[in-house]
Amino acid sequence: MITFRKAQASDLPAIVAMLADDPLGAGREDASLPLAQGYRDAFNAIDADPNQLLAVAVDGAELIGTLQITFLAGLSRKGAWRGQIEAVRVAGHRRSGGIGRLMFEWAIDQCRARGCSLVQLTTDKGRTDAHRFYESLGFTGSHIGYKKAL
Amino acid sequence: MITFRKAQASDLPAIVAMLADDPLGAGREDASLPLAQGYRDAFNAIDADPNQLLAVAVDGAELIGTLQITFLAGLSRKGAWRGQIEAVRVAGHRRSGGIGRLMFEWAIDQCRARGCSLVQLTTDKGRTDAHRFYESLGFTGSHIGYKKAL
Repeated sequence: MITFRKAQASDLPAIVAMLADDPLGAGREDASLPLAQGYRDAFNAIDADPNQLLAVAVDGAELIGTLQITFLAGLSRKGAWRGQIEAVRVAGHRRSGGIGRLMFEWAIDQCRARGCSLVQLTTDKGRTDAHRFYESLGFTGSHIGYKKAL
Repeated sequence: MITFRKAQASDLPAIVAMLADDPLGAGREDASLPLAQGYRDAFNAIDADPNQLLAVAVDGAELIGTLQITFLAGLSRKGAWRGQIEAVRVAGHRRSGGIGRLMFEWAIDQCRARGCSLVQLTTDKGRTDAHRFYESLGFTGSHIGYKKAL
């Protein structure tokens, strides 16, 4: 029985370990304990923000997935709220078992419950498996995502 | 002398008019007065959120551009803050005059001042002029942006 809930501070080491266990994440995360202060500061900022929802998927006592939803107010599209989904990971030993799909269905429901009329995400051009997955969920890859490091 | 500042409620009709004066915006915005309640509700939500900055570019008393910055806390990249730029418009009669570049330089400075280590945006695949512009500002189009209407 897989359930979903808001992440708690005690989930943080397992969440960071999932972020690091990824071809792109491996080079830019550090899951060693005690966790770097940056992770704890970011968790506190997310946790205090009513427009942020850091969530975990749980199977019994085990944390098996994570994602972050940001609820974005904007003037465009007659003042539509958008839900933005980021930092999606499924625990390595549970991948390809349909958990990602359950997580997205849950996340999209959260966006709907908050009155969003659009859900958006970006994914690296190299994640071709992810592209097929998002298209199967009804997403359209209509945009290019640009990034600039500061 | 072009200056930049946080948008005020009295700027809202001019901002919505700029959002509507665009090939993609024309079909989805409504700049008629009085403005639809959705725009006013969205303005209030943005204005009340310390992680949102709706900004305008002003030349004398005239409003000549707008953009929205969202400051996003996230665990990824060791808890890096990201600035996300959206809803960028320059008034029709002032386009191609370098104002967009000034606006982006200002917006990137705002992101830097808030401690962001990354600036991100998405743009429709059809806006080919915009793609060249973002690349000239040092952005890399490394991602695909997916959207799903609810």
